Amino acid sequence: MTDRTAPTNTKSIKAEILTIGDEVIRGEIVDSNKARMAQRLLQCNIEVHCQTSVADDAARMSELFQIAAARSDLVLITGGLGPTSDDLTTQVMADTFKSPLFLHEPTLEAIRLFFKQRTGSQRPMPESNAKQAYFPQHAAILPNPLGTAPGFMLAAQQAVGTEIESAAESSGHIAFLFCMPGVPRELDLMMDEQVMPWIQKQWPNRPVTCERRLRTFGIGESALEDALNKVDVLTRIEQDRQLRFGYRTCFPDNFLRVIAQAPSAAQAEEKLDEVSAWIREALGPKVYGEGEMALEEVLSDQLRAGGQTLALAESCTGGLVAQLLTNLPGSSEIFNGGVVAYANAAKTDLLGVSSELLAEQGAVSEAVAAAMAQGARKRFGTDFGLASTGISGPDGGTPQKPVGTVYLAWAWEGETRVEHFQLKFKRDMHRRLCAQILFDGLRRHLMGLDVVSSNFTGRKLKVSENR
Amino acid sequence: MTDRTAPTNTKSIKAEILTIGDEVIRGEIVDSNKARMAQRLLQCNIEVHCQTSVADDAARMSELFQIAAARSDLVLITGGLGPTSDDLTTQVMADTFKSPLFLHEPTLEAIRLFFKQRTGSQRPMPESNAKQAYFPQHAAILPNPLGTAPGFMLAAQQAVGTEIESAAESSGHIAFLFCMPGVPRELDLMMDEQVMPWIQKQWPNRPVTCERRLRTFGIGESALEDALNKVDVLTRIEQDRQLRFGYRTCFPDNFLRVIAQAPSAAQAEEKLDEVSAWIREALGPKVYGEGEMALEEVLSDQLRAGGQTLALAESCTGGLVAQLLTNLPGSSEIFNGGVVAYANAAKTDLLGVSSELLAEQGAVSEAVAAAMAQGARKRFGTDFGLASTGISGPDGGTPQKPVGTVYLAWAWEGETRVEHFQLKFKRDMHRRLCAQILFDGLRRHLMGLDVVSSNFTGRKLKVSENR
Repeated sequence: MTDRTAPTNTKSIKAEILTIGDEVIRGEIVDSNKARMAQRLLQCNIEVHCQTSVADDAARMSELFQIAAARSDLVLITGGLGPTSDDLTTQVMADTFKSPLFLHEPTLEAIRLFFKQRTGSQRPMPESNAKQAYFPQHAAILPNPLGTAPGFMLAAQQAVGTEIESAAESSGHIAFLFCMPGVPRELDLMMDEQVMPWIQKQWPNRPVTCERRLRTFGIGESALEDALNKVDVLTRIEQDRQLRFGYRTCFPDNFLRVIAQAPSAAQAEEKLDEVSAWIREALGPKVYGEGEMALEEVLSDQLRAGGQTLALAESCTGGLVAQLLTNLPGSSEIFNGGVVAYANAAKTDLLGVSSELLAEQGAVSEAVAAAMAQGARKRFGTDFGLASTGISGPDGGTPQKPVGTVYLAWAWEGETRVEHFQLKFKRDMHRRLCAQILFDGLRRHLMGLDVVSSNFTGRKLKVSENR
Repeated sequence: MTDRTAPTNTKSIKAEILTIGDEVIRGEIVDSNKARMAQRLLQCNIEVHCQTSVADDAARMSELFQIAAARSDLVLITGGLGPTSDDLTTQVMADTFKSPLFLHEPTLEAIRLFFKQRTGSQRPMPESNAKQAYFPQHAAILPNPLGTAPGFMLAAQQAVGTEIESAAESSGHIAFLFCMPGVPRELDLMMDEQVMPWIQKQWPNRPVTCERRLRTFGIGESALEDALNKVDVLTRIEQDRQLRFGYRTCFPDNFLRVIAQAPSAAQAEEKLDEVSAWIREALGPKVYGEGEMALEEVLSDQLRAGGQTLALAESCTGGLVAQLLTNLPGSSEIFNGGVVAYANAAKTDLLGVSSELLAEQGAVSEAVAAAMAQGARKRFGTDFGLASTGISGPDGGTPQKPVGTVYLAWAWEGETRVEHFQLKFKRDMHRRLCAQILFDGLRRHLMGLDVVSSNFTGRKLKVSENR
């Protein structure tokens, strides 16, 4: 089906990453650029062997550039391309590799234009920005459509300087050094549109690596592993040396990651489809989706497909469930609204929960949760009503109803289901987990399953009843 | 007032940070450990000159340990202390610095006890964990109360190995290498309780650095700078060489950061109090707070102090305002509840907005925003009612009411204020900004000010009226 004839080039390419900047070195920002560049290189099977960060200091930068050029084939550098006096990357590259700077007129013009378009010619280009139009001789310029700092690539013919000559053993070694802006979105675009295509052209026919992420909720790592082992999925994955597998907890979910290597992206994806099918067979509805799609998105799509609508009555989740749903564009098609009922009066007046019930059972009770879900459904005229009432902490617990007690309810035509949980998480995680259980319950119901699976991880007690 | 007699030791200490692990080098995780360690060192005026990450590879690790020991006084290392075969740090340290491993019986006992307490003796310590009780000879052990991986400190008397002898010029140079677990909370505790006190003891009487963060909303960097310059705050800060100053955008806020160096923490804080007073004088109520306290927390405290309560009617913010408020413990004292009124029916039924008004003016209108805020206040019986109605996008805009149109309303006894904004942000940022304007408006009103300052950054149009 796919072309398997192209010979694969598996020569190892040594790559390293350097990031420049006082703000990184002082810990004022967490530098996520390194991780994103490394991920991209892994996609073309290039493993980074070292990541280094240094301050805006010419001597240290130069030393590092020389060491990197001597020991690596590919060097990705970010930062230090700004217009101010502490941005040194271009000058240090020029000095280190004896490539004097030259003014690139088209770039200067592009920067002027960038300012004009941004400010409607109210503000001319500050003179300091002209600096960003200078490049080391023989550098290939990498335009930056999102900012004023273009990048550039310099092929360093051989290591220069005495200190690292011993390390540079192989004379004639060529290193390709890419200097890029540190602003994440500018860097990402430059990597995707310029550096990655360059790599594929420079080192053609290398195997590619693709990743698949399967999203699960309500099942821990060891239970996932047991379920996968039952039908030998892990053994089958291990037997294929082109596959890698791992777990990743991303609260409140657990993700499964499969990585496949193949001569082409199509073949890697084909392999991932196969493994994905094995995993889905083993785990069934515990896998709620793939990729970047969150649970509330999966649920919204289910509701949209069925032309169904939803309303909320939130006490302990305090608007979080509504917020997650409405953060999705187009949510008004499936979501009519909700009541955040913190005070008891709100529960009676807006949701029609009887004051007697509240007095008898207390606000945190199975009966009140059920009445809230029914009230929301009725008040907003929707197909489904979801409700939460509980004690998120840190205060408010009693011996009978300690912090972490929560009742979650799902109401639909003719039936209301309530589940009781005793969760042990901090306030924000408690609330997030409750929201996820509510979403997952309705997702499962829409698939014809019970709202909560019998082996739900983390539940302490089940007090569920049909009514 | 404070003791100014202790002599200050300003000898420069060269520090660097190494992190070990395939997951870092492949970009599978963003390594925040480096930033947190660097921040802590800065507090005792130790600047990190280099941060490096390498894979779980013995040869590369050893090379890096030698280079670091030769060029730095203090080396902080994380990762590679786990029980599995790819955790190599301890063995590589032992080999590199010729300090054979020994079994530390008390540590083995502590790890056994840790497992017993965690699993209620159901699960004995796996034999692989015994590895974590071995340390290089002469290492000082750093207990880990939160996990099974203790850390250790090794004083490397001098650089070993041929490759870096030239770099290690000063023979007899002693480097202190701290090896610590990579789990953030375990690392943080070890840094705070063991490494930082050790540094203060090892290099006493060094000046300390303290930081103050002032939080502002609704004013851009250049306007902040103009306001500060008007009363010479920046000049005064620049004249004091022990002070540093900077801006940081943390959407939707702008922070001002002041860093003071002094012989003692008390003296640094005294200086920060002084600078903080200058800034507050210059910016007035634009500074809404300091440190980690978010705007909704400041507002909640104001309401609590006045014994006042709040209710919400959210359309375009979709529960976000409620969620931010209720994420704070104790929010039920000041927050009675809210309605997320996505469908028009919810606006009429639950909030009492007249259907005629909705039909005439449209849901996104000044009149409907006012009626929503009034309705929330009335329905929940609170002192204040806040409302949002707008078009967050990406779809739903019209030529008359394009995406980004929003009306925000504040209702209190006898008065309702509505403000119209035309914002240009993506959906999630649009919603977040609306929530912040609502919080800030009520904060300002409680201070006796207009809900939105006349020079609010980002507002395009004002259609505010008393009624």
